[in-house]
Amino acid sequence: MKNIISNLRKQVPLVHHITNYVTVNDCANATIAIGGSAVMADYIEEMDDFSKFSSSLVLNTGTINREKANSMLKASKAYNLEKKPMVLDPVGLGASKARDKINFEIINSANLSIIKGNASEIGTLIGYDGKTRGVDSSISVNEDFIKQAQFYLNNKSFILAVTGKIDYIIDSNKIAKIYNGSIMASKITGAGCMCGSLCGVFSGVYEPFNAALYALVSFGIASERAENKSIGTGSFRANLLDFLSTLDDESFDSEARYEII
Amino acid sequence: MKNIISNLRKQVPLVHHITNYVTVNDCANATIAIGGSAVMADYIEEMDDFSKFSSSLVLNTGTINREKANSMLKASKAYNLEKKPMVLDPVGLGASKARDKINFEIINSANLSIIKGNASEIGTLIGYDGKTRGVDSSISVNEDFIKQAQFYLNNKSFILAVTGKIDYIIDSNKIAKIYNGSIMASKITGAGCMCGSLCGVFSGVYEPFNAALYALVSFGIASERAENKSIGTGSFRANLLDFLSTLDDESFDSEARYEII
Amino acid sequence: MKNIISNLRKQVPLVHHITNYVTVNDCANATIAIGGSAVMADYIEEMDDFSKFSSSLVLNTGTINREKANSMLKASKAYNLEKKPMVLDPVGLGASKARDKINFEIINSANLSIIKGNASEIGTLIGYDGKTRGVDSSISVNEDFIKQAQFYLNNKSFILAVTGKIDYIIDSNKIAKIYNGSIMASKITGAGCMCGSLCGVFSGVYEPFNAALYALVSFGIASERAENKSIGTGSFRANLLDFLSTLDDESFDSEARYEII
Repeated sequence: MKNIISNLRKQVPLVHHITNYVTVNDCANATIAIGGSAVMADYIEEMDDFSKFSSSLVLNTGTINREKANSMLKASKAYNLEKKPMVLDPVGLGASKARDKINFEIINSANLSIIKGNASEIGTLIGYDGKTRGVDSSISVNEDFIKQAQFYLNNKSFILAVTGKIDYIIDSNKIAKIYNGSIMASKITGAGCMCGSLCGVFSGVYEPFNAALYALVSFGIASERAENKSIGTGSFRANLLDFLSTLDDESFDSEARYEII
Repeated sequence: MKNIISNLRKQVPLVHHITNYVTVNDCANATIAIGGSAVMADYIEEMDDFSKFSSSLVLNTGTINREKANSMLKASKAYNLEKKPMVLDPVGLGASKARDKINFEIINSANLSIIKGNASEIGTLIGYDGKTRGVDSSISVNEDFIKQAQFYLNNKSFILAVTGKIDYIIDSNKIAKIYNGSIMASKITGAGCMCGSLCGVFSGVYEPFNAALYALVSFGIASERAENKSIGTGSFRANLLDFLSTLDDESFDSEARYEII
Repeated sequence: MKNIISNLRKQVPLVHHITNYVTVNDCANATIAIGGSAVMADYIEEMDDFSKFSSSLVLNTGTINREKANSMLKASKAYNLEKKPMVLDPVGLGASKARDKINFEIINSANLSIIKGNASEIGTLIGYDGKTRGVDSSISVNEDFIKQAQFYLNNKSFILAVTGKIDYIIDSNKIAKIYNGSIMASKITGAGCMCGSLCGVFSGVYEPFNAALYALVSFGIASERAENKSIGTGSFRANLLDFLSTLDDESFDSEARYEII
């Protein structure tokens, strides 16, 4: 047994989020459920202090605005100095020029570990031809997409995590394909954001590729279990947190379905 | 069968919300549950871009402030140009002078399709004598109220949707009375806001009167079903989303209880 | 029977919150579930108006920033004039210099009734040696802590409510120890914030010491019942609201476990 979950829970990584006000509660609860601790704070005057005692930083550009962006940039500098892992969830990248501008400011100034998005967002990032409609994804990952992503990653410090029917973790020299998951996750708001938070939690303990892999597998397993028990999207959301909070090493090992190529 | 729900779900209208941070998650989840897609964004620099690809706009003045109001006014102009439906949920209208001012700025500049509120809020709007206590309603709709509302609507582009024990959709020449609903909906935060969101979703596909009618009937049916299954307000909230997400044409047709006068 | 809950529900105190965007929905729902009414508003221009018709004010410094702090200070003045109860939940006190500064500004200008926090936050407040790690607590209450708290309270208008495995209500001349509660409450975000909201609700009807006592006992009983029914943290959260909303005088009297010393 690989003790992936129990190792995480022993360390209780504290994940500092600067995130949107739509799914922030789900992000905090998912963070705690998997075994981390969550602090949500975006006041620019606090960023230095929080970088000192947090394990990792999650930046999520849902409901972004200039003020929040400035806090993200301030935080990035502080976490750069601390050499702590940073996850970017570029929610809605491609949906507006203003949002793109902010995301690229962050990407250019933060030493990111992981960028996690859906295929539209990551497609926009790597210059793959796809359109973002609002915050939902309308393109999917194929061989061309992966090739372009790996080309893009050549001189980058971070890896990419692309969520969808199949999730992909893409590094410049390897990829993971994750088959766990449920279509129900696309029927609630916050599934993607929670995946970003889980990447942040696992980043506090594991190196980026494995952190993203364990995060998306955990979320996928919990989603599958939740789907089996749910009547609709309201119960799915509660069940999802239930199964994140009750996930253990044994079920992680036996239910994980992924391959590394 | 009228295919009201399935027609909506075929089109998946994207509803742009500028809304409060209290019930925003419920609004997004209700939007998705009924068959729409939700984007929550209030950064003033994004309003033009979002007006291009969204189906409708929902403006909700819970937790309003000057900055958010400015984004609402900017968005209104953009959606005016796009001739896309706009729903106003004037949360707490009558509760403070500052809130009233902002609401009337919006009403005067946006070509609204629907204003949805409780009897206090709509009473304040139409000049009917009623007091708003916080964000809850303390007056109810009667013949005088309707008469005054229809007088008010004479030179207006929008209709009114008034939620309460009985919901009313009021146009200058007709009204709908909706009998579906549950008292439990008044025991959670966000019921009114979710109704506003549903008005936005249906507005993406149906003309305003029917959009508001279908929205409140859908919410009412889901509330009734949720009440039957719930122990308290926590389970009611989850069940409500379950029954919005599983509502279909058949149950809409068979369980809808309303009359148009 | 003491009719503690039914007396509260007869009066439906309206609790004005200036709070964080993480747990605000839970705070509103908890407020309503126990029998109050909730209004969440932080626009500085509204503070005077809201102080007129609200029963009490809850200030919560999660996701604080300068703008929200200014609204809190403005509100404090208004509620001082109205002589209405104010509860401070100094979330994360000790976690950053900026947050400490804001909290002490509030404490120095508001005539607070109750300050409710975990042991780290209250420890920081009273100068007891403890460290806040993010927003979670790492120290616990002992005799020294209580002594120092009572010394601190000597010239203060408010009492202290300290949440933890055992909750403490501390006044300069008496303390209550509350044994109700569940470890599960520490596994969701918002438990502490909901306790602050409940302090606000009960403050609308009862004097501060009893208000805090009834609030924490109610929350503790609901938590115990929720734990018995829950699979994980998602269902716990829903069940907690269920049991707050169904709590009655009889179960309060029979299940309360506390002592006053």
